[in-house]
Amino acid sequence: MNIYDVSKKAGVSIATVSRVLNGNPNVSEKTKDKVLSVMDELGYTPNVFARGLGLNTMHTIGILCSDSSDTFLANAVYYIEQALRKNGYESFLCCTGYELENKKKYLHLLLSKRVDAVILVGSHYLEANKSDNDYILSAAEKVPVMMINGYLNHPNIFCTLCDDYQAVYDAVIRLVSHGKKNFLFLYRSDSSSSRSKIKGFKDGMTAAGLPFSEDTVCLCSNDIIATKDFLLSLYKEGHIFDAILTAEDVLAVGAVKFAGASGIRIPEDLEIVGYNNSLLGICTEPELSTLDNHVETLSITTVNTLMRILKGADVPNKTTISNDFIARGTAY
Amino acid sequence: MNIYDVSKKAGVSIATVSRVLNGNPNVSEKTKDKVLSVMDELGYTPNVFARGLGLNTMHTIGILCSDSSDTFLANAVYYIEQALRKNGYESFLCCTGYELENKKKYLHLLLSKRVDAVILVGSHYLEANKSDNDYILSAAEKVPVMMINGYLNHPNIFCTLCDDYQAVYDAVIRLVSHGKKNFLFLYRSDSSSSRSKIKGFKDGMTAAGLPFSEDTVCLCSNDIIATKDFLLSLYKEGHIFDAILTAEDVLAVGAVKFAGASGIRIPEDLEIVGYNNSLLGICTEPELSTLDNHVETLSITTVNTLMRILKGADVPNKTTISNDFIARGTAY
Repeated sequence: MNIYDVSKKAGVSIATVSRVLNGNPNVSEKTKDKVLSVMDELGYTPNVFARGLGLNTMHTIGILCSDSSDTFLANAVYYIEQALRKNGYESFLCCTGYELENKKKYLHLLLSKRVDAVILVGSHYLEANKSDNDYILSAAEKVPVMMINGYLNHPNIFCTLCDDYQAVYDAVIRLVSHGKKNFLFLYRSDSSSSRSKIKGFKDGMTAAGLPFSEDTVCLCSNDIIATKDFLLSLYKEGHIFDAILTAEDVLAVGAVKFAGASGIRIPEDLEIVGYNNSLLGICTEPELSTLDNHVETLSITTVNTLMRILKGADVPNKTTISNDFIARGTAY
Repeated sequence: MNIYDVSKKAGVSIATVSRVLNGNPNVSEKTKDKVLSVMDELGYTPNVFARGLGLNTMHTIGILCSDSSDTFLANAVYYIEQALRKNGYESFLCCTGYELENKKKYLHLLLSKRVDAVILVGSHYLEANKSDNDYILSAAEKVPVMMINGYLNHPNIFCTLCDDYQAVYDAVIRLVSHGKKNFLFLYRSDSSSSRSKIKGFKDGMTAAGLPFSEDTVCLCSNDIIATKDFLLSLYKEGHIFDAILTAEDVLAVGAVKFAGASGIRIPEDLEIVGYNNSLLGICTEPELSTLDNHVETLSITTVNTLMRILKGADVPNKTTISNDFIARGTAY
């Protein structure tokens, strides 16, 4: 028995049920009576939403993030917490790691602490195996679930995404227009975001009329020196490449180190594109050209959307933000 | 009325009282009776410690950190959470920002969620004005308080520190031995850690027989480009310097950028030393020489100490870890 059943039976949206539970005045008396009588009929006890009735709200939001040492995720958390605080909300963050069991455990823990909503930061909360996401759907029956860079089409789940597919696709086309032909794509872990980027890479190559080979997509460790060494070994084996796209700035830094160690000129002989527009990209010589996925905008948009939800507004369940190409020293 | 009063009146250590409350078998029946009768006499209700009696423990630790976008703090949080999870503990993190009022609010929030202990990460939890730390002392009456890189001498507060003073002092002596004479010290915010580093800088200069001037200690913004521009303006005004020590790697990166823009040779004409041994230091060209404050060791030591405390062990309330000089490209 959950809010979804109530909405279906009453023939109103989840948002309307939520508005009734939140005591929002923008609901007609008639609709309100209808919803309340359906709840009564179904024996629905809005124990968790009860706090929305002003009985018990802690004004606390739970945040899940897989890895606080990841620059993108750490920055997202930073902007989310700032925005929540500005709106009078406090927050708890749980760093879950990448194991499904721990993600479940922490989400459960947050709900037991009676948070008003949860925010899942990063595409690692979208499992490749669909049924592994069921714990997120269950959470959405209790509180609004916000996802950053993950998308589940389900009531009470609201997603803010950056367009990873298009960003990489466009970068391929851009570098091809400079005459680059032999591409590598480096990524560091499997996630829905990586899968989008790889698809953008593949489709970009095809659209540009270039042959695509699976072995140009390389899984690297999340380490500058290991990435440099990996590229050095490819190079010594005679692999030819004049363009390297990456899923993370840290991998692009490794590519810059590789070029330095091999006497390859950047960007004339090798163009390199990072991802995330992180601080690392300003440290290198030359500085990284990178795809900016607007972590600040993603984070603030998520909080703004959540604030509207908590006030009972109808909001779309998916917002997509486009990426920008930041041209610095490693690619035109 | 608190655990401190009980310990004083019973003539036993806080750890012993804690052992009794934790049901630890390593307490003689006699001592146990004594402690329990003092509690009775004083009317002490161990409501918070009661969870230690196995009644109500959540196996959850609260973590406070001022800023998740700071690389050092983010890494510390990452290692702490990993170590806690290995020990079967979950954790909540609150990013408080730098305002005292918010620090207080979040510490209170964590205690209200009935955590078993709190860990304060980073030297920003030690206010220059002593009485501003009273809220931490109060928390220590309820749960063990662990501090990373902050030191308060108070029962039930346990501190793990890196020796910032000595690290900077030694670095001055080291660079002086290379013939460097005109030093700058760059830092980015006032904290107990910054104050230790600045004192180490000052004392190192004095010990090396060099004149010390207050205006060689420069407060910079936490930004690579701003630091570079600041040094450029000093340089154009005719200031002479051949050694730059910093309180953060990010400032040292700015110094490397400054040297690149000014055609100054590193390390021949200018030696630069970072701080924290962060990922940024591997991105620059040349790579940063830096002072490694062993964030992983600091974090794991803190968790190991906490685990012993929760088992009722007597532990020292201060552990200091020495820093290492990592010699890479910007200083010998």
